[in-house]
Amino acid sequence: MASKEYEAILKVLLDAVQTANAANPAAAAPAATFPAGIPVGVSNHHIHLSQADLDTLFGKGYQLTPIKDLSQPGQFACKETVTIVGPKGAIEKIRVLGPVRSKTQIEILTSDSFKLGVKAPAKLSGDLAGTPGITIVGPKGSVQTAEGLIVAQRHIHMTLEDAAAYGVTDGEIVTLQVEGPRGGCFSNVAIRANNSSALECHLDNDEANAMSINSSTTVKILK
Amino acid sequence: MASKEYEAILKVLLDAVQTANAANPAAAAPAATFPAGIPVGVSNHHIHLSQADLDTLFGKGYQLTPIKDLSQPGQFACKETVTIVGPKGAIEKIRVLGPVRSKTQIEILTSDSFKLGVKAPAKLSGDLAGTPGITIVGPKGSVQTAEGLIVAQRHIHMTLEDAAAYGVTDGEIVTLQVEGPRGGCFSNVAIRANNSSALECHLDNDEANAMSINSSTTVKILK
Repeated sequence: MASKEYEAILKVLLDAVQTANAANPAAAAPAATFPAGIPVGVSNHHIHLSQADLDTLFGKGYQLTPIKDLSQPGQFACKETVTIVGPKGAIEKIRVLGPVRSKTQIEILTSDSFKLGVKAPAKLSGDLAGTPGITIVGPKGSVQTAEGLIVAQRHIHMTLEDAAAYGVTDGEIVTLQVEGPRGGCFSNVAIRANNSSALECHLDNDEANAMSINSSTTVKILK
Repeated sequence: MASKEYEAILKVLLDAVQTANAANPAAAAPAATFPAGIPVGVSNHHIHLSQADLDTLFGKGYQLTPIKDLSQPGQFACKETVTIVGPKGAIEKIRVLGPVRSKTQIEILTSDSFKLGVKAPAKLSGDLAGTPGITIVGPKGSVQTAEGLIVAQRHIHMTLEDAAAYGVTDGEIVTLQVEGPRGGCFSNVAIRANNSSALECHLDNDEANAMSINSSTTVKILK
């Protein structure tokens, strides 16, 4: 084949790639998957409390009662539950997760938003500036938070070593591929890498149900 | 550049494409999107009844009471609701959709499966062979169906003219792209094209909540 023909072929290929990328920006990055599947943890709505709010809701100096260790080191589910109340309705039995945090954070499902009558933005844990507040009711009192109501943004916890193995960095946004008859992909999945994490992808009940994900499902990073 | 260098480049490109395709079969097909967004209809759990089951549940010769036309021509929501009951629990106020059909079909959410204690497969409407049954309770009686409990497989209704415009055919399986901060894609979306349909993608509450889809969201076919 002459050099001119190769040039023509390369031009056709480049044009095709550019056209495809323009039509579908999500596919523009080279498709790279990583070998090992990532385990999935599915979260229902739950709440993290500050010590000050715990005091108001459960009594001065109250200590949480752990009942189950969670997959992230040091985190646990507690015996305690609270009720959260918005202008349209209340949701009872919201599980408290421990230990206490510097700020109260309420993680709900999109369906809960409709019940409460408050729209919660998708945010990463701790990123609470500008989020709406909610009324929390416990056995000894209630608090009206100024902020802290979020839908958890999809994220993957991992160690820095895992991150290097997967070729990603803390804070990077990736796409997640889910196999199976109700599979698909989730965009905007944040990598949360540090050395106090265990490898696990966190999705909420809505996301898990939409793709028929259960505790035995593994997912893949698709950059 | 010498012809040998072009050959080397082409080989690298081909190898890269083959490696990427092997790692990610979903991306192997050329990325093609279609220009116009498709409106989305979001369904909660609901039931279609046969006249025989309607008779048992509501009384001999009972006629459904339409309260709202649905987007698909001739389909309507009814005043009537029923309770469905499984080994683990009951769900009240399941809306009846009309008109009556030849077979009773109960479309639930994945979250309902857990409440009822019955696992429902993802199936297209009408494809009921081998699906589980459920107990349905109405004001005048109850029925135990032999089959008919499904989670609706994602699908897009369209006319044959729409199908031609989108370059798809009845029964074809496509991938759907959802934009936005909680976007992503749904695989295994069935095209249901005939001349009694209106253009609309049907997703259920779980799928809509997982990607923050509401009635103003449009989606794209990504083959």
